[in-house]
Amino acid sequence: MDHLSFRFELAQQLRVDSVRCSSAAGSGHPTSSMSAADLMAGLLDGHLRLDFDHPEDPRNDHLIFSKGHASPLLYSCFKAVGAIDDAELMTFREFGSRLEGHPTPILPWVDVATGSLGQGLPIGVGVALAAQRLDQLPYRVWVLCGDSEMAEGSVWEALEHAGFEQLDNLIALVDVNRLGQTGQTMHGWDLDAYADRARAAGWRVLEIDGHDPEQIETALKDAEDGDGRPVAVLAATKKGRGVAEVEDKPGFHGKALVHPEEAIQELGGLRDLRVTPAKPTTTAQPHVFEVRGGGLPAFEPGTKVATRKAYGEALRALGDRRGDVVALDGEVGNSTFAEMFRDAHPDRYFEMYIAEQQMLAAAVGMQVRGWRPFASTFAAFLSRAYDFIRMAAISRADLCLMGSHAGVAIGEDGPSQMALEDLAALRAVHGSTVLYPCDANQTVQLAAAMADRPGINYMRTSRGATPVIYAPDEEFPIGGSRVVREGDDITLVGAGITLHESLQAAEILAAEGVQARVIDLYSIKPVDAETLRRAATETRGLVTVEDHWPEGGLGETVLSALAGVGAPVHVLAVRIMPGSGTPAELLGQAGIDAPAIAAEARELLKAHR
Amino acid sequence: MDHLSFRFELAQQLRVDSVRCSSAAGSGHPTSSMSAADLMAGLLDGHLRLDFDHPEDPRNDHLIFSKGHASPLLYSCFKAVGAIDDAELMTFREFGSRLEGHPTPILPWVDVATGSLGQGLPIGVGVALAAQRLDQLPYRVWVLCGDSEMAEGSVWEALEHAGFEQLDNLIALVDVNRLGQTGQTMHGWDLDAYADRARAAGWRVLEIDGHDPEQIETALKDAEDGDGRPVAVLAATKKGRGVAEVEDKPGFHGKALVHPEEAIQELGGLRDLRVTPAKPTTTAQPHVFEVRGGGLPAFEPGTKVATRKAYGEALRALGDRRGDVVALDGEVGNSTFAEMFRDAHPDRYFEMYIAEQQMLAAAVGMQVRGWRPFASTFAAFLSRAYDFIRMAAISRADLCLMGSHAGVAIGEDGPSQMALEDLAALRAVHGSTVLYPCDANQTVQLAAAMADRPGINYMRTSRGATPVIYAPDEEFPIGGSRVVREGDDITLVGAGITLHESLQAAEILAAEGVQARVIDLYSIKPVDAETLRRAATETRGLVTVEDHWPEGGLGETVLSALAGVGAPVHVLAVRIMPGSGTPAELLGQAGIDAPAIAAEARELLKAHR
Repeated sequence: MDHLSFRFELAQQLRVDSVRCSSAAGSGHPTSSMSAADLMAGLLDGHLRLDFDHPEDPRNDHLIFSKGHASPLLYSCFKAVGAIDDAELMTFREFGSRLEGHPTPILPWVDVATGSLGQGLPIGVGVALAAQRLDQLPYRVWVLCGDSEMAEGSVWEALEHAGFEQLDNLIALVDVNRLGQTGQTMHGWDLDAYADRARAAGWRVLEIDGHDPEQIETALKDAEDGDGRPVAVLAATKKGRGVAEVEDKPGFHGKALVHPEEAIQELGGLRDLRVTPAKPTTTAQPHVFEVRGGGLPAFEPGTKVATRKAYGEALRALGDRRGDVVALDGEVGNSTFAEMFRDAHPDRYFEMYIAEQQMLAAAVGMQVRGWRPFASTFAAFLSRAYDFIRMAAISRADLCLMGSHAGVAIGEDGPSQMALEDLAALRAVHGSTVLYPCDANQTVQLAAAMADRPGINYMRTSRGATPVIYAPDEEFPIGGSRVVREGDDITLVGAGITLHESLQAAEILAAEGVQARVIDLYSIKPVDAETLRRAATETRGLVTVEDHWPEGGLGETVLSALAGVGAPVHVLAVRIMPGSGTPAELLGQAGIDAPAIAAEARELLKAHR
Repeated sequence: MDHLSFRFELAQQLRVDSVRCSSAAGSGHPTSSMSAADLMAGLLDGHLRLDFDHPEDPRNDHLIFSKGHASPLLYSCFKAVGAIDDAELMTFREFGSRLEGHPTPILPWVDVATGSLGQGLPIGVGVALAAQRLDQLPYRVWVLCGDSEMAEGSVWEALEHAGFEQLDNLIALVDVNRLGQTGQTMHGWDLDAYADRARAAGWRVLEIDGHDPEQIETALKDAEDGDGRPVAVLAATKKGRGVAEVEDKPGFHGKALVHPEEAIQELGGLRDLRVTPAKPTTTAQPHVFEVRGGGLPAFEPGTKVATRKAYGEALRALGDRRGDVVALDGEVGNSTFAEMFRDAHPDRYFEMYIAEQQMLAAAVGMQVRGWRPFASTFAAFLSRAYDFIRMAAISRADLCLMGSHAGVAIGEDGPSQMALEDLAALRAVHGSTVLYPCDANQTVQLAAAMADRPGINYMRTSRGATPVIYAPDEEFPIGGSRVVREGDDITLVGAGITLHESLQAAEILAAEGVQARVIDLYSIKPVDAETLRRAATETRGLVTVEDHWPEGGLGETVLSALAGVGAPVHVLAVRIMPGSGTPAELLGQAGIDAPAIAAEARELLKAHR
């Protein structure tokens, strides 16, 4: 069998196996798999350099199915290379199987979870950036994209960044099968429409018939010759290719075939072909950045420092101490103070411009290769990338995120710049850690702790300078809290800005003979339930205060920790739509400043004598 | 003074006023205002057709500052047209002033809040779609864009959709001032880079010197001649134009000038020019869609119907009854059943393809003109547009959102398709309404109620068919709840899928002699605190159950409602990362099915005898 005939047969096998496993499951996306089978057969046979026996080899190419719903095809490829056997293939979508409906990294050959469209290509940009600027290795990143997902802005962010960064180790294989879930895509088979867009963004474009093994071979070979431009292989294909009942017909998206046996016959029946992908050839090892060591920054108690600034200094120091720490920012590095890292470690700093989705995706891509990304922007603008954060958790990604300019305390810029939902959004991410320091030394300790912590780590910082109240050598374990002031009448719980307001409220109350305990709840998730419960027992009630909407933030965190304890809890939060004003005016208007806290404490004590 | 000289003087006045108001405020973005002053002078003087005395006139053009930080320029324009006086201009960024740091619709001439970059243009697409397909009026939509924000994928979604929809009533004025917040943008003054991208998306492109009144005039005139393509005026400008201290220099983003008096002198001093924009000339009135009336769909109790399907039928019926209801979908209309509306009301249906940000933005744009949009997609993918939802609340937008395929109960597709954070995210939106029906008739009633409710309304629906347990004529007021089963031993609180599991758990418990009260908490926000408090008093405790992460969802809603009441509350939620499996397997694994609820109820009763 000559090379091209073998590829045809291999592609048919991938189709047959896609049909078989999805029909066994009774669901899945066989037709979306069948359109791209020839592309994958070509890729596996001589182009992909991936040692499936050693998926951890840093020299491996990466293969990302941005169209994650084509998982039957991916798993059929895994069978064809011998990574899984046929029995496992047939567990597709079963409870407990590694072969989930959409790919996740519980499979060792899957870098990231896909299934939310438009994420694989921007993540591929991150892996390709890691190859060129961090690992400094010649591995390539192959991303299989669907045509429907080209409508996602995140894909255009990826095109833009890959072109700008000259990532010629990134190759997008675009399976232009014309049909989306409900009908024809915006551009149908108009390959030129995609070509014009990609070329405008600085890509090299190859337009082919995606079912012609010869054209595929030529394109893949051509794509491997880097000329400084990323490569888009635009392949015109047919959804459901090879089975007349479904080929190029709408209405068959995401459905197992009704007559799988006939389809398998039409595709030439079962085959048991094996293909052995090439292995990496380079002997190079990943680049190691030299580190100069040094201590963490320390701030003088009694001075005033913004926690965002302390974050910037901590990030720089972490870069001094650890070669694996890298930083990304959404063109606001002088606001987040990520610029301190940039100036000290320009090789490990990535300017992502105002493209928060691409920033998150690039961070996810870099951690695939073991780097520890810190991605920073205004906390409000992390909402732009919320789907990427959600998916990063499914990818089991280890990330550090920092959102600055939290809450109404930012002042004059107004509500568009105020994060008032970030605690709720970031808490509701599986396995996440949510930190909210109130002082510079605490910020430094928490930033350092984040760098070692698995999962999605989020730190919320404040715009304005706040008093340094802790000594530099104090420890703030994640999951802990700090009783900043003792008292047995009532408990005030704050974090960040509102911790300082709570301390002032305690002073006001003390002048009236009321002794308030003040808890610094810097670790919002995981939370120190024990200290909260003790306060609930030892004092007459708790007033929680947050610069955040009342839903899903600090107050509800405390209520969750105290579920069933039965102590009175009054939640102070932002309940009006803020405008512009000074931080003091806006904290006052929202009813979360010291006088408001003191007043609420009096109310609580009156109601629960 | 000839026309072009007048425009120069007017532009200088806009610059002077931008400097004055931001210096008075001590913050703001004068340099970002100064670059676009000539463009705005040209637009106000003879091109914008907007009756500032009657901003509600449906025939008016629309002016959207996508670069919302150029608010000093916008407010200076409002002064130049006589909409505000100089005294009000000088209240910029003061507490209580309408002139917030970034524009919001508390000003009658501002359609939507901007300030999160990359939103104005996609919203403009929505307004332009409303003009062409809904109002059927010849008004135009002018959007002032910054060059930095062109990096946002949402801008490319807008370019793509405007080109595809042939919105030649949409004109983007792109202020290419080269400098972002921290340094040069990706493309600097390379107008061709932007031109290539916009042209590829089907736009007509005009490249000009953005400080040359003659070129501006020619371009604006040209832009008004619609030829089926949207128009991008790419204007090369200088940030801080006219003041040598800051002109084209980095480091002056978002800062009041240090020497405003000298700057004003350099700009030629104070002026008091007035300009009167043109008024709309058409005598046409907005199109009114004929309605056929009819009742709401009704479902037979005892049958099984998916709530997403009931939503689709309700949406179609609302379209039958109301001409103002329009529907948008993110290319999953056969999953959300928005296709039922599409088939009945194709004129009012908008296929937004897989571009959730553009879908949300278009909905916001349509409600600017008084239409009532229902935007539907998988609930998980609304996370893609979370920043747009956040900003829509600041825009005081009235929207209906529907997210289908909630929770692990979707089954085999796996976690990428499961919304497990949507309740937390949507609750944490100011003024939002969050609904989660469990049966088809309830879905219909709630969908109809949403259509009349201000603010951001969100309905969560389920994939699988669930029993119809309510009669078609039952009422479900927003803010209410329903005691589905009486009992005085313990209370089970569920909604959607988990309401049915709770009912089954109550059966299990009844067989053991335990009488469980079951509450259907279909209105998650606002919540019926009274019924929950009564249950807390009358039973020995509550078990809440949700197909959602434990943070920010139904359980914390209940805890908030019961803060201070002191009843034991046990929260059942999804605490493991799900994979694929049948709905029953996954509900069981997550510990939120009937046996798990019954077990937790026993635990609670044992602990609180």
